[in-house]
Amino acid sequence: MSNDSLKIPQATAKRLPLYYRFIQNLHSSGKQRVSSAELSEAVKVDSATIRRDFSYFGALGKKGYGYNVSYLLSFFRKTLDQDEVTNVALIGVGNLGTAFLNYNFMKNNNTKIQIAFDIDEKKIGTTIGDVPIYHLDELEQVLQEKDIAVAILTIPASVAQRITDRLASCEIKGILNFTPARLNVPSSIRVHHIDLAVELQSLVYFLKNYPGVEEAKTE
Amino acid sequence: MSNDSLKIPQATAKRLPLYYRFIQNLHSSGKQRVSSAELSEAVKVDSATIRRDFSYFGALGKKGYGYNVSYLLSFFRKTLDQDEVTNVALIGVGNLGTAFLNYNFMKNNNTKIQIAFDIDEKKIGTTIGDVPIYHLDELEQVLQEKDIAVAILTIPASVAQRITDRLASCEIKGILNFTPARLNVPSSIRVHHIDLAVELQSLVYFLKNYPGVEEAKTE
Repeated sequence: MSNDSLKIPQATAKRLPLYYRFIQNLHSSGKQRVSSAELSEAVKVDSATIRRDFSYFGALGKKGYGYNVSYLLSFFRKTLDQDEVTNVALIGVGNLGTAFLNYNFMKNNNTKIQIAFDIDEKKIGTTIGDVPIYHLDELEQVLQEKDIAVAILTIPASVAQRITDRLASCEIKGILNFTPARLNVPSSIRVHHIDLAVELQSLVYFLKNYPGVEEAKTE
Repeated sequence: MSNDSLKIPQATAKRLPLYYRFIQNLHSSGKQRVSSAELSEAVKVDSATIRRDFSYFGALGKKGYGYNVSYLLSFFRKTLDQDEVTNVALIGVGNLGTAFLNYNFMKNNNTKIQIAFDIDEKKIGTTIGDVPIYHLDELEQVLQEKDIAVAILTIPASVAQRITDRLASCEIKGILNFTPARLNVPSSIRVHHIDLAVELQSLVYFLKNYPGVEEAKTE
């Protein structure tokens, strides 16, 4: 990975996985080139934003021709390190956690949920979506054995900080936090927070205050 | 709502529900004033960003004093229209949908999931988290009766567009899309998209490319 990637805006970085997914789809369907207008229609990001995003990576396309799909595919695969799998643990196998385990986002992707943890004896020792479920008591030991870099938190907010503190004592580098709790972590851990209540409230706020304004939908 | 709110940046608007939640917590705990540094610590947004966000709303605080909690609370309640409830329907009562219905995000909030839809006969006629589940065949009729403005999509991607087309024929104004599908909608409907795979991939990308860079966690 070149150092150039350090200079791209974070908003652009957040859209890369989305572009990658649709370029995969285009490639699978046999398409050989694509214009920014077509990409825009598919990913619902305006084409000026797409052209600006792509421009950070140098000349990916040609004026009047568009982008070569195979080239884009190999470029994004490399940029997103698709060939290097990041091992993920999921903590909390309730409804939300189960949805994640059943969801196929580990396919065609550079992330794989390898293990899950819960405290419900009925779930421990079983698998969901091929992912084995361990007792939370074994957290530290199993995380180390399986070389886990990222944890998804789908646990009650009331225990989120306590479990985060335990994760901080392991080699965890990133947390995807689905609880409403705001987590205190050492600077070595990056937290992305997805608060479902805030997402819904935010949508309602936009409906009331930005009627008719198009959103850059992947912000 | 004054027209001033139309001028605030969308990134700021997205943080408002988050601020509101923590100001509610502060108020409940009896706190009377708060500094931007304390707010920053609680919501994990840097204090310069908080001060800039708040500045769009005029003089909410005083230098050397901080912000008055009661004033902030009433200000945000008004700004976020907390007194006007938006009725929400959830479509697809699988694991993810069930997690939503059990999740208490309708409490202390200006949104309420009033109804859910599924096609599983075992679920229809039951309630989860007090929300009644209807058959999808009744979608158009029930949405109209209940004055529903927003739909949450927790259905398989393969049927997402078809159901979106049905929603477009009703009075739906906003869709919170949890499927990986990108939806085509008329300009009268606003879509916010939360793609769990993209969120995970994005976290991994940041871990690899922005080591040690603090994120504005609510972007």
